[in-house]
Amino acid sequence: VSGGGWLLDTPATGVYLYPDQCEAVVHGLSRALTALLGGHVKQSLRAPPVIARSVIERVEYDKSFPHLLGTVTTRGIASDLVLLPAGCYCVYPLYADARLSAVDEVSVEATCFRQEATAEAGRLRSFRMREFVRLDNDDGCRSWRDRCLDVVCDWLGELGLATETAVASDPFFGSGNRLMRGLQMDQKLKFEVLTTVAPGLTQAVASGNCHKDQFGKLFSITDATGDAAHTACVAFGYERLVLALTHQHGDDLRRWPEPVRKALSLAAAL
Amino acid sequence: VSGGGWLLDTPATGVYLYPDQCEAVVHGLSRALTALLGGHVKQSLRAPPVIARSVIERVEYDKSFPHLLGTVTTRGIASDLVLLPAGCYCVYPLYADARLSAVDEVSVEATCFRQEATAEAGRLRSFRMREFVRLDNDDGCRSWRDRCLDVVCDWLGELGLATETAVASDPFFGSGNRLMRGLQMDQKLKFEVLTTVAPGLTQAVASGNCHKDQFGKLFSITDATGDAAHTACVAFGYERLVLALTHQHGDDLRRWPEPVRKALSLAAAL
Repeated sequence: VSGGGWLLDTPATGVYLYPDQCEAVVHGLSRALTALLGGHVKQSLRAPPVIARSVIERVEYDKSFPHLLGTVTTRGIASDLVLLPAGCYCVYPLYADARLSAVDEVSVEATCFRQEATAEAGRLRSFRMREFVRLDNDDGCRSWRDRCLDVVCDWLGELGLATETAVASDPFFGSGNRLMRGLQMDQKLKFEVLTTVAPGLTQAVASGNCHKDQFGKLFSITDATGDAAHTACVAFGYERLVLALTHQHGDDLRRWPEPVRKALSLAAAL
Repeated sequence: VSGGGWLLDTPATGVYLYPDQCEAVVHGLSRALTALLGGHVKQSLRAPPVIARSVIERVEYDKSFPHLLGTVTTRGIASDLVLLPAGCYCVYPLYADARLSAVDEVSVEATCFRQEATAEAGRLRSFRMREFVRLDNDDGCRSWRDRCLDVVCDWLGELGLATETAVASDPFFGSGNRLMRGLQMDQKLKFEVLTTVAPGLTQAVASGNCHKDQFGKLFSITDATGDAAHTACVAFGYERLVLALTHQHGDDLRRWPEPVRKALSLAAAL
C-alpha cells in the first residue's frame, strides 16, 4: 500500500505517516485546487480532526454510518467530540440560523476519519480531504456541481490521470431517509470521479454532491427568498490523488512529466 | 479566546477552525522552523491525528495522563487507535529494534489532542505541534537541546516576542516513574519557553526535552556502542505562537512589523 515510501506504514492499519515528497505533492494539489475552484470562495478554512458530536448527530451521520464513526472517549466515557468524517460538516454550523443574502462558497481542508473495514490501496482510516461547499438554490447548486466536475476531470487529465465519472450514493442522507438515498441515485445527486490508484485497483479521488435542502433545513439556513438553502460540495481525497499520481508517473518525483510537475508547483529540487 | 477572527469558535470548547490568515502564519512558522532547526534532519514527516494505542501504552501515557488521553471508540468499543497526544510518539516506532550507526534527527508535524479541563487562551484540545527529535547519547542530546533552546529564544525575540525559560516537568515519564519525574526537575530535563498569548496570560509556546534513555529502552533502540539510545525533542505549539504574535502585533496581519512579516514569508498580499 505504501508504494515507494510515499505513505509510511505505522503500527495501525490504514494509518500512515507522510514523508516530505508526499507533502510536496499534497501542497501542490492544494494550491492547484485553490487556483482551479477557489475563485469565488468567501472563506477558506482549515478544520481540526475532531468535531462536536452534536453536529454529527444533527446530520444523523451516527445513525447512517455508525460503523464508520469514531467517537472520542476519555476515561472510558464518550466525550462531546467525534472524529470528523467529512470536511463540510464544519461549515454548516457556521451558517446556522443565518439568512443568506447571496450565493456563498467556502473551502475547507480537513483530516477525516472513517473506521474502514478493509485497507486496500487508498482505503485509509485517517485521510485528508479538500472540499468546496456552495450554498445556493437548487438549480444553482446543481449547475455549479456539474461545472466543477467538468473542470476537475479536465484538470486530472492534464495531470495524466484517466478518469471515469459514475453516479453514486453517499453518507449525506440519514437512515430515516432511505427513500432519499434512492432518489439520490435517480436524481444523480452524487457523482464520483474514479481513477486507478494501484495496479488493477480503482478508487474515487473526487466527488461532486448535491445535498438538496437537507443541510439548509437541519441548520435553519435560508436563502434570500426565505426558503431553506440548498447546498452542494465538491470533495477531493489528497492521499488517493497522491497514490494515483505515483501509480501513473512512478515513485521518483524528479521523473514526473514536466507539465505535471509544473501544475503541482514542484520546485526543481524535488 | 478567538481574538480578531484568527481562531474561529466551533460548537466544541477548545476546538477551533483556522481561517486563511492563521494558516498563512502557521505555514510561515513551519518554513522558518525548518530553516532554523532542520539543517541536519534526516527525515521530515507529517503525522496523522491518530496513533496505535499499543504505542501509547508502550510509553505509559495512558497511565501517566489518563485524563488527557482521547481513545477512539467505534460502536461503543475501544478501537486500536487513540488520538495522538504529542508528535514525537510517531517517531520512536520507526526506530524500534534498530541500532543507530550515527546521530539521527527527525522533524514531525502533527495535530495533537489533549482533553484539557480548561479553555483559556492557548489551551486547545485539538492543536498543532512541530517537533524536532534527536537520537544520540546523553551528552549529545543535552547539548543539542540547549543549543536549540538558545536559537529558538533568539528567533522568538526577532519575531517580537519576549520569552522566559523555565524548568518544568512533563508527560514523558510514566506513573511508575514518579522518582524519575522528580529527577526530571532536578536534572533540568525539560525547559519550557513561555510568552504572553493574551492580556495577562502566559503559555508555553515551545519546550526542549531530554528523555534520557527512556524511549531507547522502551523501543529497543541502541546506539553505535550497543547502549540504549538517548533521545531529546524540541517542540512548538503553532496556535499558541499565532496567538502570541497577534497579541503582540495586532489582528491586522498587514500591519505587522516588516521584519516579522519577512521572517514568516508573508506575501505582500496578506
